[in-house]
Amino acid sequence: MNHSIKRIRYNPRRKAGNIGDSPGAIIIPEDAVKPLICVFSYNAKELVTNEGKSIKVVLDQFKKCPDHTHWVQIRGLGDAGLIEDIGAILTINPLVLEDITNIHQRPKFDEYDDYLFAVSRMINFTKDYELVNNQFSALVKDNVIITFEETHEEYFEAVKNRLASGKGAIRTAGAGYMCYALTDTILDRYFALLAKLGDQLDTVEDRLYGNVDKSIMFETQQLKRTLIVLRRSCWPERDKINDMLRTENSLINPEVKLFLKDAYDHCIQIMDLIESYKEITSSIMDIYLSMVSNRMNEIMKVLTIISVIFIPLTFIAGVYGMNFSRVDPVTNKVMPDNLPELYNPHGYFYALGGMFVIGIIQVIIFWRKGWFSKL
Amino acid sequence: MNHSIKRIRYNPRRKAGNIGDSPGAIIIPEDAVKPLICVFSYNAKELVTNEGKSIKVVLDQFKKCPDHTHWVQIRGLGDAGLIEDIGAILTINPLVLEDITNIHQRPKFDEYDDYLFAVSRMINFTKDYELVNNQFSALVKDNVIITFEETHEEYFEAVKNRLASGKGAIRTAGAGYMCYALTDTILDRYFALLAKLGDQLDTVEDRLYGNVDKSIMFETQQLKRTLIVLRRSCWPERDKINDMLRTENSLINPEVKLFLKDAYDHCIQIMDLIESYKEITSSIMDIYLSMVSNRMNEIMKVLTIISVIFIPLTFIAGVYGMNFSRVDPVTNKVMPDNLPELYNPHGYFYALGGMFVIGIIQVIIFWRKGWFSKL
Amino acid sequence: MNHSIKRIRYNPRRKAGNIGDSPGAIIIPEDAVKPLICVFSYNAKELVTNEGKSIKVVLDQFKKCPDHTHWVQIRGLGDAGLIEDIGAILTINPLVLEDITNIHQRPKFDEYDDYLFAVSRMINFTKDYELVNNQFSALVKDNVIITFEETHEEYFEAVKNRLASGKGAIRTAGAGYMCYALTDTILDRYFALLAKLGDQLDTVEDRLYGNVDKSIMFETQQLKRTLIVLRRSCWPERDKINDMLRTENSLINPEVKLFLKDAYDHCIQIMDLIESYKEITSSIMDIYLSMVSNRMNEIMKVLTIISVIFIPLTFIAGVYGMNFSRVDPVTNKVMPDNLPELYNPHGYFYALGGMFVIGIIQVIIFWRKGWFSKL
Amino acid sequence: MNHSIKRIRYNPRRKAGNIGDSPGAIIIPEDAVKPLICVFSYNAKELVTNEGKSIKVVLDQFKKCPDHTHWVQIRGLGDAGLIEDIGAILTINPLVLEDITNIHQRPKFDEYDDYLFAVSRMINFTKDYELVNNQFSALVKDNVIITFEETHEEYFEAVKNRLASGKGAIRTAGAGYMCYALTDTILDRYFALLAKLGDQLDTVEDRLYGNVDKSIMFETQQLKRTLIVLRRSCWPERDKINDMLRTENSLINPEVKLFLKDAYDHCIQIMDLIESYKEITSSIMDIYLSMVSNRMNEIMKVLTIISVIFIPLTFIAGVYGMNFSRVDPVTNKVMPDNLPELYNPHGYFYALGGMFVIGIIQVIIFWRKGWFSKL
Amino acid sequence: MNHSIKRIRYNPRRKAGNIGDSPGAIIIPEDAVKPLICVFSYNAKELVTNEGKSIKVVLDQFKKCPDHTHWVQIRGLGDAGLIEDIGAILTINPLVLEDITNIHQRPKFDEYDDYLFAVSRMINFTKDYELVNNQFSALVKDNVIITFEETHEEYFEAVKNRLASGKGAIRTAGAGYMCYALTDTILDRYFALLAKLGDQLDTVEDRLYGNVDKSIMFETQQLKRTLIVLRRSCWPERDKINDMLRTENSLINPEVKLFLKDAYDHCIQIMDLIESYKEITSSIMDIYLSMVSNRMNEIMKVLTIISVIFIPLTFIAGVYGMNFSRVDPVTNKVMPDNLPELYNPHGYFYALGGMFVIGIIQVIIFWRKGWFSKL
Repeated sequence: MNHSIKRIRYNPRRKAGNIGDSPGAIIIPEDAVKPLICVFSYNAKELVTNEGKSIKVVLDQFKKCPDHTHWVQIRGLGDAGLIEDIGAILTINPLVLEDITNIHQRPKFDEYDDYLFAVSRMINFTKDYELVNNQFSALVKDNVIITFEETHEEYFEAVKNRLASGKGAIRTAGAGYMCYALTDTILDRYFALLAKLGDQLDTVEDRLYGNVDKSIMFETQQLKRTLIVLRRSCWPERDKINDMLRTENSLINPEVKLFLKDAYDHCIQIMDLIESYKEITSSIMDIYLSMVSNRMNEIMKVLTIISVIFIPLTFIAGVYGMNFSRVDPVTNKVMPDNLPELYNPHGYFYALGGMFVIGIIQVIIFWRKGWFSKL
Repeated sequence: MNHSIKRIRYNPRRKAGNIGDSPGAIIIPEDAVKPLICVFSYNAKELVTNEGKSIKVVLDQFKKCPDHTHWVQIRGLGDAGLIEDIGAILTINPLVLEDITNIHQRPKFDEYDDYLFAVSRMINFTKDYELVNNQFSALVKDNVIITFEETHEEYFEAVKNRLASGKGAIRTAGAGYMCYALTDTILDRYFALLAKLGDQLDTVEDRLYGNVDKSIMFETQQLKRTLIVLRRSCWPERDKINDMLRTENSLINPEVKLFLKDAYDHCIQIMDLIESYKEITSSIMDIYLSMVSNRMNEIMKVLTIISVIFIPLTFIAGVYGMNFSRVDPVTNKVMPDNLPELYNPHGYFYALGGMFVIGIIQVIIFWRKGWFSKL
Repeated sequence: MNHSIKRIRYNPRRKAGNIGDSPGAIIIPEDAVKPLICVFSYNAKELVTNEGKSIKVVLDQFKKCPDHTHWVQIRGLGDAGLIEDIGAILTINPLVLEDITNIHQRPKFDEYDDYLFAVSRMINFTKDYELVNNQFSALVKDNVIITFEETHEEYFEAVKNRLASGKGAIRTAGAGYMCYALTDTILDRYFALLAKLGDQLDTVEDRLYGNVDKSIMFETQQLKRTLIVLRRSCWPERDKINDMLRTENSLINPEVKLFLKDAYDHCIQIMDLIESYKEITSSIMDIYLSMVSNRMNEIMKVLTIISVIFIPLTFIAGVYGMNFSRVDPVTNKVMPDNLPELYNPHGYFYALGGMFVIGIIQVIIFWRKGWFSKL
Repeated sequence: MNHSIKRIRYNPRRKAGNIGDSPGAIIIPEDAVKPLICVFSYNAKELVTNEGKSIKVVLDQFKKCPDHTHWVQIRGLGDAGLIEDIGAILTINPLVLEDITNIHQRPKFDEYDDYLFAVSRMINFTKDYELVNNQFSALVKDNVIITFEETHEEYFEAVKNRLASGKGAIRTAGAGYMCYALTDTILDRYFALLAKLGDQLDTVEDRLYGNVDKSIMFETQQLKRTLIVLRRSCWPERDKINDMLRTENSLINPEVKLFLKDAYDHCIQIMDLIESYKEITSSIMDIYLSMVSNRMNEIMKVLTIISVIFIPLTFIAGVYGMNFSRVDPVTNKVMPDNLPELYNPHGYFYALGGMFVIGIIQVIIFWRKGWFSKL
Repeated sequence: MNHSIKRIRYNPRRKAGNIGDSPGAIIIPEDAVKPLICVFSYNAKELVTNEGKSIKVVLDQFKKCPDHTHWVQIRGLGDAGLIEDIGAILTINPLVLEDITNIHQRPKFDEYDDYLFAVSRMINFTKDYELVNNQFSALVKDNVIITFEETHEEYFEAVKNRLASGKGAIRTAGAGYMCYALTDTILDRYFALLAKLGDQLDTVEDRLYGNVDKSIMFETQQLKRTLIVLRRSCWPERDKINDMLRTENSLINPEVKLFLKDAYDHCIQIMDLIESYKEITSSIMDIYLSMVSNRMNEIMKVLTIISVIFIPLTFIAGVYGMNFSRVDPVTNKVMPDNLPELYNPHGYFYALGGMFVIGIIQVIIFWRKGWFSKL
């Protein structure tokens, strides 16, 4: 059970804020980390990278490369001021800024007059095989895409490599394509997770055919819940991509839509796998319960066979252990004529033989009834 | 079990009135409390508050501040006259007035020629952790919103605070926005309740992995029903907000719709959580039943092992307890040649040893069959 | 169990007629009762009532009050001629006449060129708590509404009272309103039935927490089936009202539609309650089965504990009951050196003490394993 | 079980032909019977009937009565040439001809340029209560309807009688009406079958309340499968009639559509009944399983009560059967001071009395725990 | 179990490539085989066939027969260069080329400006009865159709035969028709597989009515999963054919659409069969579990009957085996007045008789309770 999934808590972190709070208030989650800012400014020819901890680094880069496409990657939400500054620079609706820090959003795609807002769930396993379900949000406006992640962990290394290598459409297709590329990377991670879950399903099922124990049930239940979490994240992701496909906003141009169609297919494939795996967990539970019940039956059968064979025999032994006897009133001696069998010279062997025969008959009856075959 | 949910009765209060009653009749529920009236008249500059027990306080305020937005909060439905007066002042359809006092409405949004009518369910827990499911209804007309609640309990303190502080759009965005703000506060409460239910699910599940007892089943069932009640209230709430989003009535202006879109997202999130929690209660029940059955199996296994080991041994003891003997016809004495083993000087120890060997063999067989491993 | 629901037979009465019969044939059910005819002719000023057993009474009234609205209530379908006459007077399609007497129609609303036809199910309980599911059909044409019921039982007393009192819109809103008023009364009855079913659910559930017995299962199943029957009747009722709301026929004018919208909401509420109740019956069955299984486990546990404690003790007693002994070949007397314990002066008490200790150790082991706690 | 439903085989006959066969190939099923041809040529005035075994009889009749409506009833599909001839005469697409002989089609309605093609399933029980699921297909073109059935069995006697009597619209409403009339007859048969199934459900349920045995389970499963087969046939029938209602082909004129609307209602009613019956079979299975488990519990309870009462008593008897004794070393006689109770003059009666008291106490304890009440 | 289905592994092969890879990259699966290329160039008059291993053979044929329709069948995906060449020749989007080698696509139909792309799943059983689920993809452009299969295995022999014989529309109806013909052949295979599965269901069910054993459960589960896999492949196939029916691309002309409609019907029939079979597997599992439980009950009943009969008898024997006796203090002899029955001359026979009577009474009681009838 070393590599089995950790139990999922239902309320790891609550929605921040209080009942009836004003909408649009930016409330930083308690355990949020300080933001790291990376700015990637690129066009077909060059890629300029800049890192820092304040908004200044972003503005510098915007000034330096006015005609480049800028991907501002912000990892960590622990700075309300930063988010407000970004909101002010790009003139973003406060409700959108609230959604960025309110980290339990479902995947969605909202279209505003001159910018787009997209949310995804970044599903991953930690090294300890614990499910991580973080929020990823992206603001797309003109040639700028600003993305927000909850932790400092590197998640988009592959995208950065593609950006560095400059192959494919990534350097030329604008901010909308970058939004697609990040979303697709998030979806790719699902496939990796599902492959792991598939392996674990296989392992659990292998154990089913050996010796069943309670851990199979617990693990299957954990797998099932992990699948529920994945489905909850992936289902709205599909709607989101569909919304992106239908938008008429020029940031999502026909070329990007072609790629989005591909991402949409991936999404459907993921849903498909999740549903199949869920059906399989159910069937594993069914088999597990049936195996437990079968095993119980095997045990009960042994009890029954042994009891039923020995109960009559023990009764017979009890009968011949009774002290019935006749005391001769004259001689005051025990006379043999009361339990006549007892005084038969070979009575003991007759009795043992009789018991043996009764036992054998019973075994034959049970054999005929098929009790010795495996259930 | 101190903090577990109270059992839900299915018919706490009936639909008032009799079969075939005329539609539009205002029938006050038997346990309705006398109304408390609060009028909040506000604009960007000032907030005028007025409390009282009769309709006069409302009319006074309307006259005093003709250009303000008025929120008339009526807590308690125990005065049919008051509701009729309001109906007369705002010229409301009698069917709407009936719905206000008929306190088992589903959430809905009805649009009339010059006013709007919205119903929500105010879900809450009492201090004793009992589920309360009261009706909230709102009439919106021009610059007036009149809200009706069943009890005197303060539910919208946060909204009143925002009104007092004057921050955000609340003082300037009109009666439609106030309708949104109240609805959103009601939805916020769901999150708080679901957080509590999530905690309880965690607690129940923790107990699953320890010693299972019947209370787990009862609590899980209560949780499940609470979730059914929440779903029944929240599902039509979603439709209601959707209807509000699609209305072309000027009271719900585009700015309010932007906020309603946010409330709609919250609604979906709540539904999502409810569905997940429901799936989890099912899986807890499955594990519970499986645990009970496993435990039963453990107990039966002990019975079986001990019985099966001792039954043959007891039979052997019974055999050697039989009184077979030969009475010498001459000496009238018991002769040792009938149950020869009994008169073997070491027969007793041989017998004990034989029993011991049989017992050990059985233990080994069961060990091999894996009966000593936990199921 | 005095007041529990009667078992529902699946085929109380068959579809009349034979396979391949010509469509439009009026086939009177075998147990149909002779019709009672009531004619209510009313306008805002007066209400003229007339009763009888033949079509003459209807025609007379039509002549007498040409400008009134007429509600012809026909209770009993046992007269094919009457129905044919009505068909001829109002020029009704034979297929519609067939539907009136073919009493297993689903609720529906059919629109013809110059008349409307509506079917509902009149659900009720008899005094013996048996479910009655009769057909109600209504023909609406100009200022006339003709309704057909299966039995003489008074079902619409409340409507007649409202008609007599003249309050509300009932006397002025025409035949379409009357159709609504009758439908709404039928829906009101559902609420009354559901309140009764809710009470019974509460009672059954109370018994669950006491001593479970088989009757709980049978009653729950009967409740579930009653709910299935109700749902089968109410679901198409919703579609029917929806069809009425969307018709452009002038008989269903906007005022009536406002009221129908209200009836539609009632219908949804009923469906909602039925679905919740169904979920509750399922959960009661789950708890019942779990309780039975728990109880069985309790019983088995007692068996196991007592057996497992006494089985080894009885074995020990058996051992000391064995007749091993040495017969001194010289004196021919039983010598004490074969089962040495037996001839120990305090052997008996040592043995009893040993058994007692073994018993106590077992009790402690079982206590530690939690076998004495309630499952 | 004399009248219970026969088990359904899943693959009674396979799709004829091989993988990748050319579409439109007419492949006669192996067990097809030679066709019987009946031609009914009718108008309002007369009905001319003609029977035979070759296509000539059809052509003759067409020539003889050029202005009549012709119903060509072909029973038996065992003649590929006949079907090709008909295809040639009416210029039918080969794909349609393939569907006529490929006897596992779902009900469907296909519209071609100048003819219509409809498929239904003819569900029936044989005398041995075996489910028969044959294909019925109809070609409608101008004033001709050609129907194909798999067997010689008479299925449409009622339609022929109506044709002979000339009542109703049958003789005047054309080939489209005949298509409706035959479909409606097929639907009528469903009602008859469902009535039988309803009776059997009642019978099975009656037996539930008496002594449960395994046959209940098998019969219920057969009923459920029969219902699955019926649903599979009826569901597409509904779609088919819906397609017929929406066609603009003049063969299905408005008058026929009015009747088809009626058939559509029947279809919905059948679906409704099937779904209800399916729910009932599920609930019968639930009760059956619960009854079996209850019965098992009853048996186990008796075992437990008797075992638990006698186990301690038998132990006591065993204790007093132990051979502890003291042999006086001087007199070599058995002395009474080792198991003192044994030598008490009334010890036996005290022991019996003690056992009796222990037994009674146990009975009282079990009584209090409610073990003697029925589960 | 010789012919039962092999267990399905969940992750036989993974999605090739790494997380975040550039879209459109052609990644050859590790176990891909080297491609075999077959080119079939045909028109109504002739069929020219050419085989080879490089793209040259295709280009040669295109040049040789410019006015023919060309079917290029590529079996084996192990050559990235070949696929890139084909992409270059026909100017195909890289995303499409990626889909060809990424062999876990769902069936789909994508329409591009001047070509079509279709994916199907080729379901089959190996000789060892293992499920094979390979990808089939087809590119259709002008008069060329290029198909890609994963293995060298011959799957479309029937189509090639039809091509050779030249019957039907296959030689004249263009590349779109060929796409249909191949898809239809793939669907035909489903029928063959389902026939096999139906046979196996029958076999499994036969065994249900005999001696149940665990293999029934495992086989049924394997059948269920095979059905899940089939459904996952067939469901999107339906959507794909539907998309093909609605396309306005001239490659899918009305004639082809007529045939596609037929394929669509087949698809629905397959779905229908799969759903029915799934319901049957569930019902087999239900019966299996019920049978196991019944069998267990039978065994327990035997244990109970035998135990309950012998337990009191053994107790009685134990009582008469007690050593109560009175030792005459004077004579030091055992006196008969303590257990008086023991010294009754016929006591033994009375006791045996009493035991016999008690046993018979118990048998009668159990008989009356119906314990001897089969559950």
